[in-house]
Amino acid sequence: LSAKYESLDYDTCENHLLLDEERKRGYPFIVWKDILRWFIIMLIGAITALIAFIIDICIEEFSNIKYKALKKFVDKYVLQDRLYIPYLLWVLSNICIVFIGSMLVAYVEPVAAGSGIPQVKCYLNGVKVPRVVRIKTLIVKAVGVITAVVGGLAGGKEGPMIHSGSVVAAGISQGKSTTFNKDFKIFQYFREDHEKRDFVSAGAAAGVSAAFGAPIGGVLFSLEEGTSFWNQALTWRTFFGTVVSTFTLNCLLSAYHGHPGELSYPGLLNLGRMDPFPFQFYELPVFMLFGAVGGALGALWNFINYKLAVFRIRYVSSPWLRVVEACLVAAASATCGFLMMFLLNDCRPLGEDPTRVPLQLYCADGEYNALAAIWFQTPEASVRSFLHDPIGSYKPWSISLFVVCYFLLSTWTFGLAVSSGLFIPNLLTGAAWGRLLAILIQYMLPSNTINPAKYALIGAAAQLGGVVRMTISLTVIIIETTGQISNALPIIITLVVAKWTGDFFNEGIYDIHIQLAAVPLLPWEPPPLAHNIYASEVMSHPVFTLRTVENVGHIVELLKLVSYNGFPVVDPPLADEGDVTTYKRLRGLILRSQLIVLLQNKIYNENANTTWSNYKVDSNMFRREYPRYPSIDELDISEWEKTCTVDLRPFMNPAPYTLPHRASLPRLFRLFRALGLRHLPIVNDVNEVVGMVTRKDIARYR
Amino acid sequence: LSAKYESLDYDTCENHLLLDEERKRGYPFIVWKDILRWFIIMLIGAITALIAFIIDICIEEFSNIKYKALKKFVDKYVLQDRLYIPYLLWVLSNICIVFIGSMLVAYVEPVAAGSGIPQVKCYLNGVKVPRVVRIKTLIVKAVGVITAVVGGLAGGKEGPMIHSGSVVAAGISQGKSTTFNKDFKIFQYFREDHEKRDFVSAGAAAGVSAAFGAPIGGVLFSLEEGTSFWNQALTWRTFFGTVVSTFTLNCLLSAYHGHPGELSYPGLLNLGRMDPFPFQFYELPVFMLFGAVGGALGALWNFINYKLAVFRIRYVSSPWLRVVEACLVAAASATCGFLMMFLLNDCRPLGEDPTRVPLQLYCADGEYNALAAIWFQTPEASVRSFLHDPIGSYKPWSISLFVVCYFLLSTWTFGLAVSSGLFIPNLLTGAAWGRLLAILIQYMLPSNTINPAKYALIGAAAQLGGVVRMTISLTVIIIETTGQISNALPIIITLVVAKWTGDFFNEGIYDIHIQLAAVPLLPWEPPPLAHNIYASEVMSHPVFTLRTVENVGHIVELLKLVSYNGFPVVDPPLADEGDVTTYKRLRGLILRSQLIVLLQNKIYNENANTTWSNYKVDSNMFRREYPRYPSIDELDISEWEKTCTVDLRPFMNPAPYTLPHRASLPRLFRLFRALGLRHLPIVNDVNEVVGMVTRKDIARYR
Ligand SMILES: Nc1ncnc2c1ncn2[C@@H]1O[C@H](COP(=O)(O)OP(=O)(O)OP(=O)(O)O)[C@@H](O)[C@H]1O
Ligand SMILES: Nc1ncnc2c1ncn2[C@@H]1O[C@H](COP(=O)(O)OP(=O)(O)OP(=O)(O)O)[C@@H](O)[C@H]1O
Ligand SMILES: [Mg+2]
Ligand SMILES: [Mg+2]
Repeated sequence: LSAKYESLDYDTCENHLLLDEERKRGYPFIVWKDILRWFIIMLIGAITALIAFIIDICIEEFSNIKYKALKKFVDKYVLQDRLYIPYLLWVLSNICIVFIGSMLVAYVEPVAAGSGIPQVKCYLNGVKVPRVVRIKTLIVKAVGVITAVVGGLAGGKEGPMIHSGSVVAAGISQGKSTTFNKDFKIFQYFREDHEKRDFVSAGAAAGVSAAFGAPIGGVLFSLEEGTSFWNQALTWRTFFGTVVSTFTLNCLLSAYHGHPGELSYPGLLNLGRMDPFPFQFYELPVFMLFGAVGGALGALWNFINYKLAVFRIRYVSSPWLRVVEACLVAAASATCGFLMMFLLNDCRPLGEDPTRVPLQLYCADGEYNALAAIWFQTPEASVRSFLHDPIGSYKPWSISLFVVCYFLLSTWTFGLAVSSGLFIPNLLTGAAWGRLLAILIQYMLPSNTINPAKYALIGAAAQLGGVVRMTISLTVIIIETTGQISNALPIIITLVVAKWTGDFFNEGIYDIHIQLAAVPLLPWEPPPLAHNIYASEVMSHPVFTLRTVENVGHIVELLKLVSYNGFPVVDPPLADEGDVTTYKRLRGLILRSQLIVLLQNKIYNENANTTWSNYKVDSNMFRREYPRYPSIDELDISEWEKTCTVDLRPFMNPAPYTLPHRASLPRLFRLFRALGLRHLPIVNDVNEVVGMVTRKDIARYR
Repeated sequence: LSAKYESLDYDTCENHLLLDEERKRGYPFIVWKDILRWFIIMLIGAITALIAFIIDICIEEFSNIKYKALKKFVDKYVLQDRLYIPYLLWVLSNICIVFIGSMLVAYVEPVAAGSGIPQVKCYLNGVKVPRVVRIKTLIVKAVGVITAVVGGLAGGKEGPMIHSGSVVAAGISQGKSTTFNKDFKIFQYFREDHEKRDFVSAGAAAGVSAAFGAPIGGVLFSLEEGTSFWNQALTWRTFFGTVVSTFTLNCLLSAYHGHPGELSYPGLLNLGRMDPFPFQFYELPVFMLFGAVGGALGALWNFINYKLAVFRIRYVSSPWLRVVEACLVAAASATCGFLMMFLLNDCRPLGEDPTRVPLQLYCADGEYNALAAIWFQTPEASVRSFLHDPIGSYKPWSISLFVVCYFLLSTWTFGLAVSSGLFIPNLLTGAAWGRLLAILIQYMLPSNTINPAKYALIGAAAQLGGVVRMTISLTVIIIETTGQISNALPIIITLVVAKWTGDFFNEGIYDIHIQLAAVPLLPWEPPPLAHNIYASEVMSHPVFTLRTVENVGHIVELLKLVSYNGFPVVDPPLADEGDVTTYKRLRGLILRSQLIVLLQNKIYNENANTTWSNYKVDSNMFRREYPRYPSIDELDISEWEKTCTVDLRPFMNPAPYTLPHRASLPRLFRLFRALGLRHLPIVNDVNEVVGMVTRKDIARYR
């Protein structure tokens, strides 16, 4: 497990300062905070939607420009039989566009790579991935996703939207920005891990909602992926945020597309209106088959992606290599597309399913190349084509080739140094093989009329389910995106089977990446058969502790010596047992960050009468620095200060949760997981601290 | 808070026996248990659906017979102008039918009254309402709901379905039945509160799913109303259960209605196919208005119902009075209906919206009485009529009167000694006033064509939301029931506003009833401003404790003396401090039930060589008696036994969660709530037990 991740503390520190604040401000403060929370959630929803809107418009417009220009070249040079010119242009434009995004990601903010969902998932689980909710990350992410999709990579804009929502939430709720080094001095009361995490989970939900037009799916996503503690008030607010988000986006997009007030664009992902498809009893096995295929293919996708990721970690670690790889993939994508358009002559009469830029290529007049239509548009539009085109629109051969190509391209793309998600490419692959199977079924049962949309949708769901392995939230997201609840049962069955099949082979893609990054994520359940592992084995000891009234010099020394973030506060040892220094009676728990703030503000007992009197010692002192406290080396502590003492009692958490050393690992785990703890002191029979357990100690057991 | 409720223990007791079992059986046992769990969930889903099916068919058929017969009489006597005869017959039939159900409920199983949702909610929260998950309850409930609906009461069959699902789950998962005094000796490993509660929550979800055809709504319901700890594996299984349930019901109903294999009846509540209704930007305020009206009306409904409930507790407490009241309401319902049919002459041409038994009454030939059509069918069918009939089908006057009547009738009905729910009556009332408002809007904007279905649906949602105050699960349930996701946004907005408005006045109806019953339900969040209340104030003391090796006589005495269910196990006091009996070092926690089993099986140290050798002391010993252990008075303990000793250490929970006495109430609360504890020992600085906190102690603070 990597040491660079720190934990979030979902537990509140109920020290004297908090009590003072509560007493002084009373009930109106609680109401006021609650109103503020609703207001912030509204802002989060609206701003997330705005960002989604901007990203969407940019992608649409730029793609349009790009493909229109390319089409002109193709149309011109196909007559002269010099198609290599538009091909080179295509490759070049892809590379250039991807290069920009990739440079940004590789050099400016590496954490913006990929979809961001694994990172958000970690955050919600209680692990702080460094820099993941900074505004800089958001900007790189937004530009990155535009370049990735416009650059023709097999990636989508949905995952990044979820990440964007989280950043927006973290930024707004804190009323300050580290990137811009600006503190707006608002919303200070929400500057603690507990509140921030709640907002981030709402932000992620708003992101899902904007991406898929799925307000309910968004709530479920943030529950399924993140929160372990179901809190009605929080869910309720999250729900409000998702509704605001989808509503705002709807208004903006409807207005942009020229139908203001009509509200027909609930989300970024627009799969077009699906008709309800009736299904028969005997089709259920077919859906299960689809699920199994999706699960197997998804597992394969994950496997290849995993191998690639391992390879990357080993050999493609420097930023410039990563940029080169991204450009390579951009070139490969264009090449794939070009070869397929060039080699497979899948001509269709024009006008039947007009894409924006139908290419004629070698087709007869009045016809267009069906494959070119698939490649010459954003992947999202291609999903729409596969879902809605009539059954004869594509030759089975071209679809098969497309599936193989796109499958490989998309698994290669996810994990590159570009920010793009995997929802759309997997939906596209799935829709393609779903349609292929539909053609097969039609071929075997020529008397029935097969509805390809049904099978394409089921295939898309199966493939995506096989890769990400979400269940209930994914079901709802797909239902909300397609706007058809009557298709729920087939989709559910497919997803269930896909998950089962996939889980048989490996984990979901997000979990794979989280494990690769060595994040100490806590699973849902304690490891099995662990009742005979005891806290005394799990804990670290000896424990570095502090005394209730501690010497400044000692604190500074300790903080410089160790990197731990939490220290039990104990009674000073009695005079006659001076040499037994480890085992002392637990009084409370104090965090490194609190110590730093105390030192920074010089809250020494010796200063009590001089400095403190005109200095307000309250919780805001700590909030001002949150979440990035100076390191101990940045403080300058003079020699005379080191002889001073600090009384830690008013600042420490006076009643931390503890467990006896004979507690079993599952018990430890459950306490830790359910309450979102950061540090758990382990005590012996007479309440003396004998060990310390943190997330990393527990996450080691699997 | 009433003392008759006991808590469930969501915490597992990790004693030696459990460790032994784990060690002996190893990993295959875990896999086996997991497979069994899935299997049980499948059974639960299927059987719940079967019960739903039977209830539905009975109601349909009996109602049909009843109304057909009545129609014949009406048609006959209306010509002779002796309408009082069918009227009397109607009243009489209602009374008779309701009498049966009411007798059953009042005399056989009072806990089967009402919808059962409050009780299920308590159970999921961790409070055992006596007899609530017995098979006897299920039978009474099933018969009761049939009689209630056929008897013409303003009640629905959906709430009882949720309760039925829970009972089925509790019954099946335990492999034994107290009602029939039969132990099938299967599924013994699930005989603990933890497992049982998980199954019950899945059962409740399956019930929702069967009632409304809402698999996702079911999962959300059991999450929103019950579980505080979101567990992915559990959610996932629950989801499977709901899918099985809706699927089975769908098959059964489709076959019954003569379209086997068509799967078009996902749930009991069938609102008919709704068309998607496009809506405009400017309609949002209208939806909000609907929400506000619904919230206010819902709050009024709750208020009246609350007053009635208080009145009932005070004056209508004896069973026979309750039966009389139920019959009275049955008569009143018929009278209302009859008067409205008789006095308001709302005639419509026949054939336009044919109900099964159109009554002509005083209408011209070829016409029928629109109000009679509403009254002469099950309330569910009436909801359908209000939703789907064209806008001119009812006169505004008749609808207004209907709203008032039905509003009062339904609030009178909920809480009677009959088992029926409030979903349908509130949907009906809401649909009625929604339609009324639609007519009003049409009147004000004669140029637009108003779609009454839209407003009726929104009204129904608003009214129901105003009464029950569920949010996300209710949204999903309504969306799934109507089968139209495109209506999601209006419904969501309406429900949100309805909840806000309603919460301004009072609590949701279920919470009102739970509070009336003095159930120690724990809310979602700790009470505000409680950081200055400490564990030392909340706890009970002195604590009754047991020593690690305890005298049988003392145990028996203690169990007879106090009614507590949990006892801290402590070190024996040192010889020289014999008189300080209260404060001793905590070793573990043992439950009354465990002590009883130990006494019952005579697991004394003195017997160690004689009895134990041919007697297996393992966890199954405890499971065999679960969940109803004999009382201490039923055991017969001879005098000589009282001198024996029991070693409690292998049986007690060796590492119970504890908190120091200086912990604050919110901290206590969170630990209790998040982990579903039953007893929490409070210790002092040297780990000596100084107090005991249970659910009742915490629930007292609000
Ligand atoms: N005060 C302490 N004394 C001794 N060991 C500690 C102490 N705090 C943490 N540890 C141990 O140090 C190891 C690494 O700790 P870890 O980084 O998880 O803790 P941390 O830095 O205190 O908290 P965070 O999760 O925020 O990083 C763990 O094995 C943990 O048990
Ligand atoms: N061992 C004990 N010694 C002293 N007081 C206790 C003990 N156990 C419970 N109490 C107190 O008795 C009161 C009523 O307890 P309650 O009925 O909630 O507990 P219980 O019967 O042990 O558990 P259950 O919740 O199952 O009924 C509470 O105030 C509780 O603090
Ligand atoms: Mg650390
Ligand atoms: Mg009790």
